[in-house]
Amino acid sequence: MSMSQNPDNVPGAANAMWGGRFASGPDAIMEEINASIDFDRRLYEEDIAGSKAHAAMLAQQGIITADDAESITAGLEEIRGEIQAGRFNFSREREDIHMNIEARLAELIGPAAGRLHTARSRNDQVALDFRLHVKTAFFSLDRALTGFIEALLAKAEDHADTVMPGFTHLQVAQPVTFGHHCLAYVEMAARDLSRCRDAVNRLDECPLGAAALAGTGFDIDRHMTAKALGFREPTRNSLDSVSDRDFALEFLSVAAICGTHLSRLAEEIVIWSTPQFGFVRLSDAFSTGSSIMPQKKNPDAAELVRAKPGRINGALISLLTVMKGLPLSYSKDMQEDKEQVFDAIDSLALALAAATGMVRDMTIQTEAMRKAAGHGFSTATDLADWLVRELGMPFREAHHVTGRAVALAEARGVGLEELPLDSLRELDARIGEAVFSVLGVDASVNSRTSFGGTAPANVRAQVAYWRERMATDAR
Amino acid sequence: MSMSQNPDNVPGAANAMWGGRFASGPDAIMEEINASIDFDRRLYEEDIAGSKAHAAMLAQQGIITADDAESITAGLEEIRGEIQAGRFNFSREREDIHMNIEARLAELIGPAAGRLHTARSRNDQVALDFRLHVKTAFFSLDRALTGFIEALLAKAEDHADTVMPGFTHLQVAQPVTFGHHCLAYVEMAARDLSRCRDAVNRLDECPLGAAALAGTGFDIDRHMTAKALGFREPTRNSLDSVSDRDFALEFLSVAAICGTHLSRLAEEIVIWSTPQFGFVRLSDAFSTGSSIMPQKKNPDAAELVRAKPGRINGALISLLTVMKGLPLSYSKDMQEDKEQVFDAIDSLALALAAATGMVRDMTIQTEAMRKAAGHGFSTATDLADWLVRELGMPFREAHHVTGRAVALAEARGVGLEELPLDSLRELDARIGEAVFSVLGVDASVNSRTSFGGTAPANVRAQVAYWRERMATDAR
Amino acid sequence: MSMSQNPDNVPGAANAMWGGRFASGPDAIMEEINASIDFDRRLYEEDIAGSKAHAAMLAQQGIITADDAESITAGLEEIRGEIQAGRFNFSREREDIHMNIEARLAELIGPAAGRLHTARSRNDQVALDFRLHVKTAFFSLDRALTGFIEALLAKAEDHADTVMPGFTHLQVAQPVTFGHHCLAYVEMAARDLSRCRDAVNRLDECPLGAAALAGTGFDIDRHMTAKALGFREPTRNSLDSVSDRDFALEFLSVAAICGTHLSRLAEEIVIWSTPQFGFVRLSDAFSTGSSIMPQKKNPDAAELVRAKPGRINGALISLLTVMKGLPLSYSKDMQEDKEQVFDAIDSLALALAAATGMVRDMTIQTEAMRKAAGHGFSTATDLADWLVRELGMPFREAHHVTGRAVALAEARGVGLEELPLDSLRELDARIGEAVFSVLGVDASVNSRTSFGGTAPANVRAQVAYWRERMATDAR
Amino acid sequence: MSMSQNPDNVPGAANAMWGGRFASGPDAIMEEINASIDFDRRLYEEDIAGSKAHAAMLAQQGIITADDAESITAGLEEIRGEIQAGRFNFSREREDIHMNIEARLAELIGPAAGRLHTARSRNDQVALDFRLHVKTAFFSLDRALTGFIEALLAKAEDHADTVMPGFTHLQVAQPVTFGHHCLAYVEMAARDLSRCRDAVNRLDECPLGAAALAGTGFDIDRHMTAKALGFREPTRNSLDSVSDRDFALEFLSVAAICGTHLSRLAEEIVIWSTPQFGFVRLSDAFSTGSSIMPQKKNPDAAELVRAKPGRINGALISLLTVMKGLPLSYSKDMQEDKEQVFDAIDSLALALAAATGMVRDMTIQTEAMRKAAGHGFSTATDLADWLVRELGMPFREAHHVTGRAVALAEARGVGLEELPLDSLRELDARIGEAVFSVLGVDASVNSRTSFGGTAPANVRAQVAYWRERMATDAR
Repeated sequence: MSMSQNPDNVPGAANAMWGGRFASGPDAIMEEINASIDFDRRLYEEDIAGSKAHAAMLAQQGIITADDAESITAGLEEIRGEIQAGRFNFSREREDIHMNIEARLAELIGPAAGRLHTARSRNDQVALDFRLHVKTAFFSLDRALTGFIEALLAKAEDHADTVMPGFTHLQVAQPVTFGHHCLAYVEMAARDLSRCRDAVNRLDECPLGAAALAGTGFDIDRHMTAKALGFREPTRNSLDSVSDRDFALEFLSVAAICGTHLSRLAEEIVIWSTPQFGFVRLSDAFSTGSSIMPQKKNPDAAELVRAKPGRINGALISLLTVMKGLPLSYSKDMQEDKEQVFDAIDSLALALAAATGMVRDMTIQTEAMRKAAGHGFSTATDLADWLVRELGMPFREAHHVTGRAVALAEARGVGLEELPLDSLRELDARIGEAVFSVLGVDASVNSRTSFGGTAPANVRAQVAYWRERMATDAR
Repeated sequence: MSMSQNPDNVPGAANAMWGGRFASGPDAIMEEINASIDFDRRLYEEDIAGSKAHAAMLAQQGIITADDAESITAGLEEIRGEIQAGRFNFSREREDIHMNIEARLAELIGPAAGRLHTARSRNDQVALDFRLHVKTAFFSLDRALTGFIEALLAKAEDHADTVMPGFTHLQVAQPVTFGHHCLAYVEMAARDLSRCRDAVNRLDECPLGAAALAGTGFDIDRHMTAKALGFREPTRNSLDSVSDRDFALEFLSVAAICGTHLSRLAEEIVIWSTPQFGFVRLSDAFSTGSSIMPQKKNPDAAELVRAKPGRINGALISLLTVMKGLPLSYSKDMQEDKEQVFDAIDSLALALAAATGMVRDMTIQTEAMRKAAGHGFSTATDLADWLVRELGMPFREAHHVTGRAVALAEARGVGLEELPLDSLRELDARIGEAVFSVLGVDASVNSRTSFGGTAPANVRAQVAYWRERMATDAR
Repeated sequence: MSMSQNPDNVPGAANAMWGGRFASGPDAIMEEINASIDFDRRLYEEDIAGSKAHAAMLAQQGIITADDAESITAGLEEIRGEIQAGRFNFSREREDIHMNIEARLAELIGPAAGRLHTARSRNDQVALDFRLHVKTAFFSLDRALTGFIEALLAKAEDHADTVMPGFTHLQVAQPVTFGHHCLAYVEMAARDLSRCRDAVNRLDECPLGAAALAGTGFDIDRHMTAKALGFREPTRNSLDSVSDRDFALEFLSVAAICGTHLSRLAEEIVIWSTPQFGFVRLSDAFSTGSSIMPQKKNPDAAELVRAKPGRINGALISLLTVMKGLPLSYSKDMQEDKEQVFDAIDSLALALAAATGMVRDMTIQTEAMRKAAGHGFSTATDLADWLVRELGMPFREAHHVTGRAVALAEARGVGLEELPLDSLRELDARIGEAVFSVLGVDASVNSRTSFGGTAPANVRAQVAYWRERMATDAR
Repeated sequence: MSMSQNPDNVPGAANAMWGGRFASGPDAIMEEINASIDFDRRLYEEDIAGSKAHAAMLAQQGIITADDAESITAGLEEIRGEIQAGRFNFSREREDIHMNIEARLAELIGPAAGRLHTARSRNDQVALDFRLHVKTAFFSLDRALTGFIEALLAKAEDHADTVMPGFTHLQVAQPVTFGHHCLAYVEMAARDLSRCRDAVNRLDECPLGAAALAGTGFDIDRHMTAKALGFREPTRNSLDSVSDRDFALEFLSVAAICGTHLSRLAEEIVIWSTPQFGFVRLSDAFSTGSSIMPQKKNPDAAELVRAKPGRINGALISLLTVMKGLPLSYSKDMQEDKEQVFDAIDSLALALAAATGMVRDMTIQTEAMRKAAGHGFSTATDLADWLVRELGMPFREAHHVTGRAVALAEARGVGLEELPLDSLRELDARIGEAVFSVLGVDASVNSRTSFGGTAPANVRAQVAYWRERMATDAR
């Protein structure tokens, strides 16, 4: 276990930093532990909105004067202006966004600032700000998913007839249409959207007024603040109000599943963009070129979309781990909640924007897709099904006949649909011209008209269905 | 990097097993890769139900004869009987539950068994079976959560007036009631229940009939099978139908959050059961004793409930990782989906049963709770709030006066409520008898009547609210 | 939040099971919590070995008689025989492997069985058994990794000259050799091996004799038992001995990284096996065919290898989560440690066996690889480097000239190496015949002779290096 | 699935941000995807060191002139000065730290800057920088762990005789000493240290010179650059060199296990700091007070240490997920590697600094510990062991007698050691005065002298052992 080397030999900023930073003792450590302003400044809008609603309510209930409320509101507006203009001086000594704003408010309006704390605590304040932020993030996700679905629907419509291989195990299995493939992602994104809306509905309760953990003896009106801040109602239990981070965990779960969907599409785009597949061509806007290898178009955007679930899953596990086994009500551990969620919000926003852009911009190489679709006698199951369906042939026999037909085609080096009818009749005399209606890749996809099947007519009907449903739901 | 020891020296079954198992070559490896019967036999009910519905539909559509359908149904019923009686011979060679049942059906009814595969594939069959199983698990979770909530409500009602410390940082912060504390867990469990129901609603689409991946050319009626199997409607996209595991990921997410809630309660029970806290006494049924240390009651059940999220979070990460970046449609990777979900179902069922039982059985040591609630001048904020509220004292001054009162009490070794009024009046002459209405721990909790606050009247109202709501929702 | 459906309508075994299982009350729950025999029976060899060593030591120290020790040993041997013959009656009432063996021993030899517990507790016993099992698993992993490396070295040697594309972003970047590619995996596997050996070295301390948690007052000889069980030395701290699960966490970490390496190779095999790439052909033994689509060879084994990290990462997170924040010494939470590790051991064993088999058996399609290697003017950087190196051309100018050469080749529809010298000379008159020594894909790989570069000579030297090193390390 | 609310009603910065940021189109998305300068600027020292070593080697090999090398070195030094002085203008357009430095170098020294790229690529450059950073982080971790161990040893020495309860299930089980408890953490930290050193040894290979992925045709000397940068040797395979992130995964694994250890101590400190336990008093420097509740000392530092594994485990899972199934060699996904590792480095540094500080500063409440140690007849096992050891009583009988002694003591309301000898003799006449040598908590710990046991003499010997070993290892 001896040290193999002299560490002082190794270049690196980490070296100086680690040791140096905390060498000055407990103060530096505690500042690092307590200061969250570097990341929670992101909540300034929510914090100001919450304080304004609280002040208005306190005034209405006669707990503070109307004058105080007015002066508080004016001061908060001024602070918002300062922050937006980049003129606000964020201080690590004042630890977090709440104390930064509060201290500045005291500078601006004097003792009235102190009255804002009546019947409120940092515990319910931070619960409110964070919840509002997550709620807003869900709304943004809603819009981004809607845009993604629209891009997919447009592509699905354009390519309702474009035949491509349907893969299992990344091996060609049966022909499908590219439109149908796009619609599979519409289904996933629509489930994401639905999860998103359910989650908003669930978190739509306002924790403000729970105070430190037990509620308060002041005669406050929590329904008023809840309404003012756009919530359906106030939360029902003060302990839960300051301890609950379900809304954050649920955002991370929803984001993890959504990110997983995007990563599947991204993986397909990476594979489809290889010269070997050549199914799609990414636009220059969403790929990176090489100065001396003009054909090389690196699908950087797709790769990053593929990677993002790593990050989001990590954030989900982080917060689940932090919350596990934590006694009620507030513990400092919970300060670890925000960075993970902020990071997941940004990661998913970027991934969705990139995925939407790629889908919208990419060129479908229809010929390459069609050619690949017919590979490996991919309509063999169509032939077997036809024999069963049209000739009433038992399954086992149909498979046997199909196997012989494939062997024949392979020997001749042709596709199933290129076999002469006579040859097929040698296998079973009942086979007629009609069999060719399922042997080509177009015929195959056209025949799959069962509900949810890949037939172009189905694809068009589903595009119409989703357009109508998206419009209805948005109302 | 040299080997430090002779491994042959080390006892252990793993040794022989690992090497030995695969030494016989590829066949043993591939059997291990392909055989899922050891775990997917759990799906036998779902598999049989799906096949019966499919056969009935095929007969109605004239794709198979009524006789075939009848014989298939009879055969499947016989198989179900064999399995339930433990007489079914599960075979690893027949790989999975689907092929085990199918092969047995062929033995029982002959060639008609083969016709069951018309317009169906193992891909949609497994998607159906697994989805049905998860749906059923959600229903079971629904019932278990309902029982947990009822146990909590009963305890909350019994202890609406029982004062205990409200903790932050596991330090006494303000008095609350134990009933209020129980209701915090009701809120969590109710959100779990709500997530559970949203998820069922989302997964309520039947994948049967998606066939291998592209739908089928047979004239099937997917709405009929969907209805027969208790689904709202059939799925809309065949590729998605066989590729989608959202329902499993969502079960795992819901379970992870629910497990996290339970672990928080479990941690509290472990701490409360120590002789140092002594807040609760677990029943003998939910603890483990020591033969020679009669006082020692190990909270094994609580510890296991606390640990279970480790397992469920692990299952969630497993499946998220497997699904990440997987191209459509079916890949063998997805065979990894079931064991994780089964394990999470069982883990959560056990954790919920244990948590419900512990809550129901445990004895609350009300005196110990009350005594702890007053520790550390926990009503100091009540005094400060009173000074602000009743005397209109500015916040800063109220804090100053309160600080002096606490110092006085500390010096005398008494609680705040035991200070003589005269002493308090020396701090501010306006203080009157009424101040004692907030200084004791009962007074404190009684005063916190804001919506969601800990006052006993609130607790009773919330118990009534939840009883009513649970009844309404169940309808 | 109302229930959308009647759950009794839904088929499924889970339904009955969940409710039914625990309906009988606390006893069923506690049995489920306490009974670990279903999985820890796997430790029977370790348990028996530990007990034998302990008995021998107790006898030597005069704590039990030689007769007792002999009778204990004989009884344990008989039990081992019963288990191996499948005649042992495992009982859930006796909870775990330790109590199952102990109770059986009492049946076989009477009161002497009780003396085996002198100066031992279930806490150090389980710590010992589990640690021994993990140690053995490391040795098995060592052997499996060695076999994997040997398979890779054989392939690397055979294909030291086989040119293939070197990819970045799954786009052809520069030619490399397949042998060089195999050696990249040798490096990864060798690091895995090295991690494995470091871990064994670290866990090589025997916890037996730590007793419940505090050591014992009996005059035991822990060095003797440590030695008898193949450990370097006894552990130094009794509390740590019963609380420590580092060895399990480290196994899971090592397995997770190793599994990640295997998944990268597996993904490549899946992609390389597509008809579009066609770089490798899996043997029938490691793929699954289709009865009617003879070309379709599903790479099931590769897909499962790719999926296994999901499971192993999940197990790692599970145990990290369980151990987080657990006070010393033993808590029931730790019962969750074994199943995760057992599952990871088996998953990794299977993945390594499959990966080794696939590498050994697969056929390299050298022509397809070579053809792909030249795609997209992949030697453009070779040309630029040559201009810099041989003509002393500044970098920027070399890039410019190369760009023009590529444009020329693209216009003519030829590769760079097919451009006439005259055309190249028009770009820069100093260019001579020698330039062709780097323009073809063979020339390119042959030129990359820097240490660690892809040149065939390097590949052969590295194969020799690793063969020598593996031999040396094994000694 | 309809939207329940008007999102425009909801305050929040996220709203504007998400939509707004990417509304301007692909450019904004791609900049976000490609720009890593916001986090990789942290690598500037490593980047400059790598470039200097490369330039010196190129000059020695005659690939560039000595003048060029000198001017490159001077330029790089100037840049380092600019960065350290805060005068460097980091640009997102120049994407990463490598291009930022390179572009600035070109401004400073002109065309010679371009020659620095000879025989190097961004792929091996980033692999080098990141590896150097992780290596340095390991050295810092080494020092921090050493400091932590020293703090624990000091405490262990001071409290070699301080009796406290040894817990299982957080219930008092047997008396131990606080020194012994501290030494359990020394064992854990020493394993962490050992893992750290093994990892450094494993990563100690220099990737510089692997170029893009295939090595180079320039006559470079990789052994020279490896040595100059403090590495043992160059890496052996160019593909692996640019694809490998094992060193990062191993850092995260080591950090996750170490963080888990710290979280266990942190949980104990949180519990021990409650008024109910009162075992330790944190210094003011490491706790947060309440202005009006003077007794309340919130263990914020301990809680944050307890929470940090959430974050580190998340980072580990993130990178494992990103690397899973990634084909060789470089893919853009790998850009996700750094932030996770940087975050884990900082989290662990903070947690270790806080843990070390807390251990060093905290006051041990020896009386409270001792009192708790005797709770619940915690020496009952000592009595049973004594009966077996000294009287040769069979185990079962010893347990029976002990149980009766405990019942007696309980009935009288005294401790076991307070029972009169006569009473004990009524249970078994052979019991003599000597029995009291194990019945008190001091007697109990003093008797546990087995190797690794809790006896004060053992504790002192172990402190000496670790001091000697730490000194030896440091050499």
